[in-house]
Amino acid sequence: MSRLLDRHREMLDDALNAIRTREFWTPFPEVPSGKIYGETAREDGESSFSALLGKPFDLPGHPEESRLGAEVSPWGLELGLSYPAASPETLVAASENASPEWSSAPVETRVGILLEALVRLNRQSFLIGHATQHTTGQAFPMAFQAGGPHAQDRGLEAVATAYAEMTSVAGTALWEKPQGKHAPIVLEKHWRIVPRGVALTICCNTFPTWNGYPGLFASLATGNTVIVKPHPMAILPLAITVKVLREVLAEEGLPADTVLLAADEPEAPVTKQLVEARDVRIVDFTGSSTFGSWIRSHAGDALVFTEETGVNSVVVTGTDAFAAMCANLAFSIALYSGQMCTSPQNIYVPKNGIETDEGHKSFDEVLSAIAAAVDALTADPKQAAGICGAIVNPATIERVAGARSSGRVLRDSGETGSGRSATPLIIAIEGDTKRHEDECFGPVVFAVPAETAEAAIDAAAGLARRKGAITAALYATDQTLIDRAAQAFARAGVNLSVNLTGNIYVNQSAAFSDFHVTGANPAGNASLTDTAFVAPRFRRVMIRWPKTA
Amino acid sequence: MSRLLDRHREMLDDALNAIRTREFWTPFPEVPSGKIYGETAREDGESSFSALLGKPFDLPGHPEESRLGAEVSPWGLELGLSYPAASPETLVAASENASPEWSSAPVETRVGILLEALVRLNRQSFLIGHATQHTTGQAFPMAFQAGGPHAQDRGLEAVATAYAEMTSVAGTALWEKPQGKHAPIVLEKHWRIVPRGVALTICCNTFPTWNGYPGLFASLATGNTVIVKPHPMAILPLAITVKVLREVLAEEGLPADTVLLAADEPEAPVTKQLVEARDVRIVDFTGSSTFGSWIRSHAGDALVFTEETGVNSVVVTGTDAFAAMCANLAFSIALYSGQMCTSPQNIYVPKNGIETDEGHKSFDEVLSAIAAAVDALTADPKQAAGICGAIVNPATIERVAGARSSGRVLRDSGETGSGRSATPLIIAIEGDTKRHEDECFGPVVFAVPAETAEAAIDAAAGLARRKGAITAALYATDQTLIDRAAQAFARAGVNLSVNLTGNIYVNQSAAFSDFHVTGANPAGNASLTDTAFVAPRFRRVMIRWPKTA
Repeated sequence: MSRLLDRHREMLDDALNAIRTREFWTPFPEVPSGKIYGETAREDGESSFSALLGKPFDLPGHPEESRLGAEVSPWGLELGLSYPAASPETLVAASENASPEWSSAPVETRVGILLEALVRLNRQSFLIGHATQHTTGQAFPMAFQAGGPHAQDRGLEAVATAYAEMTSVAGTALWEKPQGKHAPIVLEKHWRIVPRGVALTICCNTFPTWNGYPGLFASLATGNTVIVKPHPMAILPLAITVKVLREVLAEEGLPADTVLLAADEPEAPVTKQLVEARDVRIVDFTGSSTFGSWIRSHAGDALVFTEETGVNSVVVTGTDAFAAMCANLAFSIALYSGQMCTSPQNIYVPKNGIETDEGHKSFDEVLSAIAAAVDALTADPKQAAGICGAIVNPATIERVAGARSSGRVLRDSGETGSGRSATPLIIAIEGDTKRHEDECFGPVVFAVPAETAEAAIDAAAGLARRKGAITAALYATDQTLIDRAAQAFARAGVNLSVNLTGNIYVNQSAAFSDFHVTGANPAGNASLTDTAFVAPRFRRVMIRWPKTA
Repeated sequence: MSRLLDRHREMLDDALNAIRTREFWTPFPEVPSGKIYGETAREDGESSFSALLGKPFDLPGHPEESRLGAEVSPWGLELGLSYPAASPETLVAASENASPEWSSAPVETRVGILLEALVRLNRQSFLIGHATQHTTGQAFPMAFQAGGPHAQDRGLEAVATAYAEMTSVAGTALWEKPQGKHAPIVLEKHWRIVPRGVALTICCNTFPTWNGYPGLFASLATGNTVIVKPHPMAILPLAITVKVLREVLAEEGLPADTVLLAADEPEAPVTKQLVEARDVRIVDFTGSSTFGSWIRSHAGDALVFTEETGVNSVVVTGTDAFAAMCANLAFSIALYSGQMCTSPQNIYVPKNGIETDEGHKSFDEVLSAIAAAVDALTADPKQAAGICGAIVNPATIERVAGARSSGRVLRDSGETGSGRSATPLIIAIEGDTKRHEDECFGPVVFAVPAETAEAAIDAAAGLARRKGAITAALYATDQTLIDRAAQAFARAGVNLSVNLTGNIYVNQSAAFSDFHVTGANPAGNASLTDTAFVAPRFRRVMIRWPKTA
């Protein structure tokens, strides 16, 4: 057995239990507190981060033909980082070289190494939080959570799901076939877990680790070597991740090149070359449907797992907690300025308004109350920046400006005062405009009037089915409407949150419980982390022979 | 719960146990005996088959725009069958119409119906045996086994694997997230199993049910509706299957069109139109790599599971049971005239011969002994026909004739005297000829000299890796060579049988134990039946809401 697996056995067992029960569980606390992470953790994280700035990032032994890096903090901080870089050919060859040793390491050894790396990454959550903040534009508390413990949860979930699948079937069997009056035929059978080979994990700018870890850890656990391809503007969180993994690998006498970093710059991208490389056998991708579609048609026979573009909707048909509903939606909209794949974009409301605990509310009254709740959240500049974060891509600022003309402005976008920022723009769709039917990534919300509550549900679910969606929310007091929505969004392949108020938001997707993305609509072909996400990454190959007495 | 599932609960539980332990198990006896299947089963099967001949095959309620059918028995029997046919558009629309009811039936209901259908199919194994014999050219005993109980085993394996996967994760959860000193957040979560939609199962001429049932039953169990597309020359076994399934569905008040038959004729094939239909979301295919490649590039975002062309090899490096080895290989070669996807094509032998319990044997002596064993097996015309069966496709006869010129003839092909037949041709490859590196489907065996035993292993495994292979066999007395082959064939993704003698053959793949095809080389991207074969056929979609006290 494996020493490292023994060390983390309880954590693995708890994770295996959680992925079956889907109840709340995590070994990685989400609160950035010195009481949990150690009294000096906060300061250590800050100083570790500062020590990295303006210097070449060190990845000992990593293939290096040049150094590059063009990350810019959306918060304005000078980063000045550079990373070792090598051609796609060099990286794929190095990954292939590492493959025989890594793929023939026992499952327990591989899983033990990955669990150890996750625990070490967890200890570095403050550093990763700063790295995430200054590459994604998230405010620190969110960057800590999403970049640190929540991403580690998703990595652990992938390891546990892969372990469960690799061990679900006997590795050896004695097959004894009766032959009537004659002696039975007896075969001994042994199976090996054989991975596909080299895997590529293409990460996004907004959630580099959270969206990257599932594919990275699932591929590694199943014996594939992995080339991590960060977004050119969000390399650091993944460089730290690759470094930790390489350190544990080297300590255990396995090739550090089992995990490689494919850093590039926006002007000289290498992703397409890596996708088209014949020896890349798995591609995990988070990003736009445009590039996702390119990957799906250019990856050859590689397995492709994607999370792509979607249009998430809220349907408001009635509530018995009007103020709490508006506050909840305001936070969902404002959080990280709508730059989450789970952020709501469209709010469907019956054109004649809804019934609430505060009496009848017209369409405009519902939206005005939501807008006012956003105003309240963002009134204080420091709090506004803490919720809205910064805008990671300058194009988003232009998109917000462009969206102003697509309808009646119910709330205008403003600045928080920190970094490149934009608070939510809320636009009422009028007439036959269909602008809301496409993704408008960023802090833009379209309020869409519907003939009836039923029509609102059908329109939102139909849009999800056609264009993809990762989340949906419903507010309703009528069980018939809830049942209709349950059916409609299930057929559209969207997870539905009903009547959320308080400190839980439609944007949130919890590892070990919520499957993130369903794979059942155009917003992605994979689900984090179901069996289908891990099982095809390896195969079982048998050797059998007659048992000798 | 489901009445039908209750009825077959023990069988399902035993199947669930078998797919985990991979030990021998089957509920469907492979012996065509009246003692097992009932005293009159043999005669009933024959008369049921005779009653079908020369008449329109009846599929009550099936879409029917015309009738067609051009099946010809390789044994010479007049069939004169016709089937209801409809355009691909009509079939896909009918399948979609059935989808809402079938997909929303509880898992237990669906699985119960499929188990009942399998048991009813088992009772019709004699009829299915005759139908299989006269469409595939298999001799009756093999047609009974492979078309009947062994196919039913593969169907049951798929149902059990799908059931295990659908029930492996909780369907509901209470998610309770601590909030420090505050009350926890408590969400209720429910998940639905959501299928992809319409599935297409494209079956082959040689093993219509054995290769067709896994995809058919896996798709149905996971809630997809299925269009069964038989090979135009092997419709009957699948028409009987579709009829039984539709009967059980109708009895249970579910749409019979959940399962449809897409019959066609060679002159007017409909497969491509079905593959390209936008609403076909899953394709299972058994057949050539040429058509497999077309499907993989024309199926859009449909899931594609394939078993394709391969080149299977035997490597003979030494044995302590020379006569038994030759007898075993002779049977493997002769069985169904090499028309099995598991039949060996190439026999690699060191050019300087091998050591055996009968002393040193030269290359030619090894092959001559195998040829003599084939002669012995096929000396009696009735026995020859019983082993070799008939040749299903006239092109195979031409291929055998053409292969004669590719090397030195060690054993010539002959006729059995029954039906369209060809006994094994054995050719020694000479010089730089590479004819053996491509599939030569049918009763053609290439004897390939290798420099050494090691080179023989490497050549066979390398060929498997490049061109695909479903089986490999090794004869060796040296453990170092066995270890080398285990490693080489595992990396090539081929299941390896070592030192088989007696009544067990490399061609045989037993459900519940042997994964058929690994999915890890070009001979197919799927494996019967691992989790990866069932898990992506459905998705889990959640609805969650705050728990109220």
